[in-house]
Amino acid sequence: MDSSENFFASAINKNKAIVNLEELSLWLDNIQKTSDFSVKEIPFEELDKWYFDESGSNLRHESGKFFSIEGLRVQTDFNGVMQSWDQPIINQPEIGILGIVTKVINGTRYFLMQAKMEPGNINILQMSPTLQATKSNFSQAHKGKVPLYLEYFIDASKSTIIVDQLQSEQGGRFFKKRNRNMIVEVTDDIVVHDDFCWLTIFQLKQLIKIDNLINMDSRSVISCIPFGNEVDSIEDFIAQAKLDDKYDLGTMKSIVSKKPLHTTDEIISWITNEKVTYHLNVKNIPLNEVNGWQITSTEIKHNTDNRFSVVALKVTANSREVASWTQPIVKDLKIGLIGFLIKTINGTDHYLVQAKVEPGNMDFIDMAPTVSCSNYKELEQTNRSVLFLDLFLDDQKTITKYDHLQSEEGGRFHFYQNRYMLAHLNEGIEIEVPSNYKWMTLGQIMELSKYGYFNIEARGLLACIDMFK
Amino acid sequence: MDSSENFFASAINKNKAIVNLEELSLWLDNIQKTSDFSVKEIPFEELDKWYFDESGSNLRHESGKFFSIEGLRVQTDFNGVMQSWDQPIINQPEIGILGIVTKVINGTRYFLMQAKMEPGNINILQMSPTLQATKSNFSQAHKGKVPLYLEYFIDASKSTIIVDQLQSEQGGRFFKKRNRNMIVEVTDDIVVHDDFCWLTIFQLKQLIKIDNLINMDSRSVISCIPFGNEVDSIEDFIAQAKLDDKYDLGTMKSIVSKKPLHTTDEIISWITNEKVTYHLNVKNIPLNEVNGWQITSTEIKHNTDNRFSVVALKVTANSREVASWTQPIVKDLKIGLIGFLIKTINGTDHYLVQAKVEPGNMDFIDMAPTVSCSNYKELEQTNRSVLFLDLFLDDQKTITKYDHLQSEEGGRFHFYQNRYMLAHLNEGIEIEVPSNYKWMTLGQIMELSKYGYFNIEARGLLACIDMFK
Repeated sequence: MDSSENFFASAINKNKAIVNLEELSLWLDNIQKTSDFSVKEIPFEELDKWYFDESGSNLRHESGKFFSIEGLRVQTDFNGVMQSWDQPIINQPEIGILGIVTKVINGTRYFLMQAKMEPGNINILQMSPTLQATKSNFSQAHKGKVPLYLEYFIDASKSTIIVDQLQSEQGGRFFKKRNRNMIVEVTDDIVVHDDFCWLTIFQLKQLIKIDNLINMDSRSVISCIPFGNEVDSIEDFIAQAKLDDKYDLGTMKSIVSKKPLHTTDEIISWITNEKVTYHLNVKNIPLNEVNGWQITSTEIKHNTDNRFSVVALKVTANSREVASWTQPIVKDLKIGLIGFLIKTINGTDHYLVQAKVEPGNMDFIDMAPTVSCSNYKELEQTNRSVLFLDLFLDDQKTITKYDHLQSEEGGRFHFYQNRYMLAHLNEGIEIEVPSNYKWMTLGQIMELSKYGYFNIEARGLLACIDMFK
Repeated sequence: MDSSENFFASAINKNKAIVNLEELSLWLDNIQKTSDFSVKEIPFEELDKWYFDESGSNLRHESGKFFSIEGLRVQTDFNGVMQSWDQPIINQPEIGILGIVTKVINGTRYFLMQAKMEPGNINILQMSPTLQATKSNFSQAHKGKVPLYLEYFIDASKSTIIVDQLQSEQGGRFFKKRNRNMIVEVTDDIVVHDDFCWLTIFQLKQLIKIDNLINMDSRSVISCIPFGNEVDSIEDFIAQAKLDDKYDLGTMKSIVSKKPLHTTDEIISWITNEKVTYHLNVKNIPLNEVNGWQITSTEIKHNTDNRFSVVALKVTANSREVASWTQPIVKDLKIGLIGFLIKTINGTDHYLVQAKVEPGNMDFIDMAPTVSCSNYKELEQTNRSVLFLDLFLDDQKTITKYDHLQSEEGGRFHFYQNRYMLAHLNEGIEIEVPSNYKWMTLGQIMELSKYGYFNIEARGLLACIDMFK
């Protein structure tokens, strides 16, 4: 086995950090302090180059590029309940790149991360992948600079591709949006530009335990790291991991286990059955025909004021491809809850996966976390129930393994945070699992995820799972 | 290992046939002779319950069920050449079941096959899966009988599911059509109805070497048989296979090899790159706006008379769910060529897979055979070239491993046959492989195919691969 391929082993070299976490914190503070980045909400009419088109008030950029805000009419019989609604949706047909450069230096693997300001982030500055570029970015639709490090992702002679997958984004907010998630390995020396730094996997797993620091795009790419690929003999590996005393054995076994509750063929059959049983009809409609929503001078909002809205921002920056710009953005101040329930079955951790319909999904049903709901606090107050939500908030029944606020992507979402949780069911607590849920090992989730089966919320949560003690 | 799971071993019991091939031939002749099944082409105006709708002449059934013939406007930049065209397309949004019942009797695995008449088959009678039913069939939209054996596919208490996958059909003729491909195992005795018989895998692989006998739906389901799933130790297995002298070792190694030319991650990256590089735009349009085509009283046809057409049939039968009916059908008298090129690389057979855009694909690019072209004889005459086609017809460069005519599905296609070929490149013959082709082992093809990556032509050809001597 080539040591450069070994993600587990290189990840636990705790002392091999190039910058330690205190230095990182100071570095981020300094970037924050010395930056000139301001964001303010503006009326739609002050948008520059963006306009409501004549045909039906869809909100577009005059170049025809970037994205547009359109209307969607939705009807589904999912779970046997006929539901229909209209909503605004982001249409961004271009496929961008979310990519991390990785390098093994003196036997330790590092990932090149960027401190990046995004207008929608609640704290502006978060850690993003090395490259986070829409096609309009790198084909220079807005005539800015070429993104740094782009060449390592598009020129095969400069790197070795480790991960390169099409992955979806929020099916509730985007219409069939996918990005290319990439990890590329370099061996030559490369320049570390301002605002970039090398971090180990161990450090990333520490930093992901800080609220709103590792951004959504980073979490999506980190979820694709092929842990376990390098494991030839599972028994030897588990035996060694026990000796090392550096790994969380429950998590490790869940990644490499060959004895899952359900075979992969059974899981494929289950997904087939869900897709055959239920239906989704969506129809693109003009924004001004979206029932239940209104367009004001400053907002596209639901009549109840109880959903997300679309607003306009003016951004002034000195650290981006262009120095200042205006843009529409989806705003959501209410915090959702996204969680995987974990149960030890036959000695191996299994995660409860939900088959979930969302209107913008590529193939209408994607694999989602056990719970994924918006505005969970209001749910509590109004007694509306979301299946399994109570288990996450009940320390008699579960042990919380992870509980942090994370932001959704700051280029499209304004102030939008979710509470990400991993909750391990206590021994002896039995739960009934309806037909649209399935227990899977981490290895199975990672395998299916390669083929694009898992939604962004599930992948974001996968990235939070720490296999190190 | 449970013997009931062992598809390889149970398949080579040549002497364990319940009916031998001569008996089968007599049995089929008898069904053919005693049947009352007639098909004739009629003008569209004689169609019963089918009509050209007012909005744009789409051809529909008055129940709103079954399928319709609509128009499609297509534009793609695939392979760097901008192309656009209009065409009729079949829209059949319902997902049906193609299913085979399997049973292990005295240690040998059998598959329950049906002798079935279809109006479009050039020879009327072919062998179909146990169940071949559209949702309209089994929800009885046409008020006929419930299909035989349906219960084994929809009632979990009656069988164990072995295969259950959503698989696509012709992306050049159907708009995003998928069927559920199933293999279910029974242990109880079940009644073998008239026109049904138990066949071994060995027999199926023999029968598939007869022109136009194993129908398209059967080939699609047979391609999903999980050969190799049961293999724990590849080395032991290959050693045993060598001793047995019953297996084609090149094929066996290609199924179980762990040393393919490209890793699965590399193949996923390649597919990602193809999907990011190229684009497909399709727009559903009314049939009477399809440029280059005309609707006559008896045909929807291309102005050049050089493509497929849509005609109407009147069918009289005594062996179907309903006794007689009329229907539109896609007619194509010209024979296409569908072939995989095989090459031994590092001692293992690799198959050359093409990434191919077709307008009706679920996700625009599917994995296809090396060559897949219509009317290949005309191509020869007109000097229009199809990449690699010449290799299939040149016995200096390749050894032909398989070469038979097979029919496309007789419920939707009239007289439509393709020449299916497997051609093994001779040693020393080097070919240049463009970026939209990739060498894969059979094991890799079968793995990706589980997730719906391979088109119907590729799967049909997979079914023809014989791993037995």
